[in-house]
Amino acid sequence: MDDPRNQDPRHFATGAATVLAAIRRESPLVQNITNTVATNFTANTLLAVGAAPAMVDIAEESGIFAEAASALLVNLGTLSNQQRNAARVAVTAAGQAGTPWVLDPVAIGALPFRTEFAAELLQSGLSAVRGNASEIMALAGTGPGGRGVDSTAQSDSAADAATDLARAHHTIVAVSGEQDLITDGQSAVYVSGGHPMLTRITASGCALGSLVAAALGTEATGSFEAVVAAHLIYGVAAERAAEHATGPGTFVPALLDALATVTPEQVMTPDRLRIVRAATADGQA
Amino acid sequence: MDDPRNQDPRHFATGAATVLAAIRRESPLVQNITNTVATNFTANTLLAVGAAPAMVDIAEESGIFAEAASALLVNLGTLSNQQRNAARVAVTAAGQAGTPWVLDPVAIGALPFRTEFAAELLQSGLSAVRGNASEIMALAGTGPGGRGVDSTAQSDSAADAATDLARAHHTIVAVSGEQDLITDGQSAVYVSGGHPMLTRITASGCALGSLVAAALGTEATGSFEAVVAAHLIYGVAAERAAEHATGPGTFVPALLDALATVTPEQVMTPDRLRIVRAATADGQA
Amino acid sequence: MDDPRNQDPRHFATGAATVLAAIRRESPLVQNITNTVATNFTANTLLAVGAAPAMVDIAEESGIFAEAASALLVNLGTLSNQQRNAARVAVTAAGQAGTPWVLDPVAIGALPFRTEFAAELLQSGLSAVRGNASEIMALAGTGPGGRGVDSTAQSDSAADAATDLARAHHTIVAVSGEQDLITDGQSAVYVSGGHPMLTRITASGCALGSLVAAALGTEATGSFEAVVAAHLIYGVAAERAAEHATGPGTFVPALLDALATVTPEQVMTPDRLRIVRAATADGQA
Repeated sequence: MDDPRNQDPRHFATGAATVLAAIRRESPLVQNITNTVATNFTANTLLAVGAAPAMVDIAEESGIFAEAASALLVNLGTLSNQQRNAARVAVTAAGQAGTPWVLDPVAIGALPFRTEFAAELLQSGLSAVRGNASEIMALAGTGPGGRGVDSTAQSDSAADAATDLARAHHTIVAVSGEQDLITDGQSAVYVSGGHPMLTRITASGCALGSLVAAALGTEATGSFEAVVAAHLIYGVAAERAAEHATGPGTFVPALLDALATVTPEQVMTPDRLRIVRAATADGQA
Repeated sequence: MDDPRNQDPRHFATGAATVLAAIRRESPLVQNITNTVATNFTANTLLAVGAAPAMVDIAEESGIFAEAASALLVNLGTLSNQQRNAARVAVTAAGQAGTPWVLDPVAIGALPFRTEFAAELLQSGLSAVRGNASEIMALAGTGPGGRGVDSTAQSDSAADAATDLARAHHTIVAVSGEQDLITDGQSAVYVSGGHPMLTRITASGCALGSLVAAALGTEATGSFEAVVAAHLIYGVAAERAAEHATGPGTFVPALLDALATVTPEQVMTPDRLRIVRAATADGQA
Repeated sequence: MDDPRNQDPRHFATGAATVLAAIRRESPLVQNITNTVATNFTANTLLAVGAAPAMVDIAEESGIFAEAASALLVNLGTLSNQQRNAARVAVTAAGQAGTPWVLDPVAIGALPFRTEFAAELLQSGLSAVRGNASEIMALAGTGPGGRGVDSTAQSDSAADAATDLARAHHTIVAVSGEQDLITDGQSAVYVSGGHPMLTRITASGCALGSLVAAALGTEATGSFEAVVAAHLIYGVAAERAAEHATGPGTFVPALLDALATVTPEQVMTPDRLRIVRAATADGQA
C-alpha cells in the first residue's frame, strides 16, 4: 500500500512546483462554504495564487455548483443553519460528481454542536482535512479541542490522531502548527518554514484550507502530494511576505503579493520537508 | 429620444468630474444588500471616494432605509433567504420613494436559482444593471452565463444583449470587461483604461456596482452620465493604484487610496471614451 | 460613590498601560457577535493588539461560548434573525457566568427594529456601551438617531444622555467623536487624539467596541479604566498609523501594525485626557 516515493522529500518538493504551475495554468474553480471572517481573504488568496474562487453557500445552489467546481471547501467557522444545509447538499453532490472536497473543522471540540456536525460530514468521503492539533484530535475523538480557533496543542502531539483519522476515512489529514504535519496514514510529511506572523492575522488557516482545495482541484498530482504542495506554497509565500511587512497589518497584502509572485522553482524546497513512517496499527514505526 | 450630447465623449468626461465632485460634496448614503465577500471592501470603497455606506439587509429594515437612502445596490453574490426577502422589500420601497437602485446579477446564468430571482427583481423598475458579459447575456436571456464570477465572454459580445435589456427595461446597462460598455439602449459608451489587476482581487466588480449607485445617488447628472462616471472614476483610480502596487495584495489599499485622492480634473478624460450608436431594432447602426 | 481617583488623568493613563500589558500577557478570548462588514477587521484588530478573537454567533453555540470567553461583544450592525437569537442566548449566559459584555448599538434610532432590540438587550446587565452620539442619545431615549452609521451629533452633545444611561444601567458609556467621552455616570473622561482617518474606513468604531471588550476581559483594572484604556490605545495607535498612511486604504494595515507595536509606555498619555464631573441629577456640575 505504501508508495516508496512517499519517503522522498524531492518527490513532494517537485510535486509542489507541479501543483503551483497547474494552478496558474488551469485556474481551478474552488467553491467555498466558509465563515464570514474568512470569505474576503480566502477569495483574495485564491485569486492571488491563480485559482478562481466562488462563494456559493446556499442549499438551492451549492449542489449544482459542487458538481461543476474543480474542488470544494467546507469550513465550519461560522456555522449558520443556511451553511449547514448548503454543506450537506454540496458534499453529497461532490461525492457523486467526484469533486474533491476539503473539511476545515474550525474550533470543534470546544463546541459540541459543530463537533457533531463535523462528525456527520466526515462520513461523506472527503479528500482532505485541515485543522490545528486540537481540532484534529477532536475530530479523531482523542482530544478535548481548543478554545476557539487557537491551537492548544502542538501539531506533533496530534500525529497519532491524524494517522488514525487518515486510515479510518482513507483521506489526507493536515495538522497546522509550528511545523505542519500531513499524513496519508502511512507516511507523515513535516513541513517547516512559514512564519509566526501567520498566527497574528485572522483566517490564515482558513485560507490555507482553500488553497488545499485548489491544489486538489488541479489533479496534477496525487492527493497526498497536492496537500503537501499547498502547505509548501503557503509557507514559502509567508516567509517572503514577512520580509516586506512591518506588522500583521502589512503582512496581509504582502502575503497576497507573495502568493501571486512566488514561482514553482521557489517552492521546490526539499530541505523544508522531513518524512517519517507513520506508526503502524501495532505500534511499530 | 436620442440626445445628441450622448455622441460626445467630452459630455461624459465632464459628467464624471461633476459626479465625483458631487459625491465628495453630498456624501450620498448608499444602502448595500450585498454578498459576504464584498461587504468590507465595498464599504471602504464608498468611504474612500467620499460616499456613506450602510449595509441594511434584513427585511424588517431594508424598506424603511431604502426610502431614506440616496441610492440602493442589490448584489446577488451570496443569496441567502434573508437577503432575498430584504431585497424584495427594498426595491419596492425604492421604487415608491424614487430612490435609484442598481442590480448586480453576480454569477447568474450558471445558477438557475439566482437567475430566476434576478429576473424577478428586474421587473421592479431599476436604474441600472452592472455585470460582466456572461451575466448581462443571461439576464437578457441570450446567453448561458459564466462559471461563478468569471466572465467567459468579452464585453463587446454582450453589446446586443445590453442594448435589448436597456430598451426593454428603460434602464442603463453596464458590461464590465477589458473595455467597459455602458448603454442606454440608444448609444453605447466604451470606457478603456482600468487595469488587469482588478481581475486579481475579489469584489472589484461588486464595489464598482456600489460606486454606480453612489453616482446615481448624487443626481448631479442624468443616469447614463452617472453610470459612465462611476466607471471612469474607478478606472482612473485603478490605473493610478497600479503604479503603487507590487501585486494584488498591495493593490487593494492602493486602490482605496487612489479613490480618496483622485480629483475631478483627473477623471475628465474624454480620450478613454468611444461612443457608438447602438444597433437599432431593424439592425442598422 | 464617586472615587476621587476618577478625577486624575494620570490614574486613567496608567490604567491604559496596565490594560495593554495585560492584553499582551493574558490574550483575552473575545467572543464577537458582530456585523458582516466588521468581522475580518475586528478579528485582525484583536489579534494585532494581542487578544484572541472568536466569532461564535449562532444560538446553539453562543451561550456555552460566552460562559468560557473572557468577554463578549454584541454589535447590531447587520441584525439577522440568527444573530438576534445568538445575542439573546449569549448575554444571558454572560450575565450568569460573570463574563463582561459590551453593546455596540450601530445605527439605532433611525431604525426602529434594532432600536427596540437594543432596548431589550440593555435590560441584561451589560458592562459597557460604545456608540456615536446619535446612537447613545437614541439608546437613552433622548435623540432621533443618525443616518446609518454616521454620527449626526457631536459626542459632547450626548453627554447628558450618556450620564443618564450610565446611571440607569450601572454601566460605562462611551461616546465616540472628535473627542471620545467615557462616563460611569459620575465622572466623564474626554479622550482627545485619534485621527480623522478613522472616519474614512469602515468598521473602525466596531473594532474599537471589540477592543473595549478585550480591555474588560483582562480584569486588570476597573471597568471605567478599562473602557478609557481601550480608547487611549486605539487613539494613540491611529495617530501613529496615520504617519505611515497615504490614504484610507493604507491606513488599515498601518493601524493594525500600530496596534501590534504600540507600547504600554506610549499609551500612558495623561495630556490626552480631560475629566469633568458629570452633571448631577439636580443639574449641578
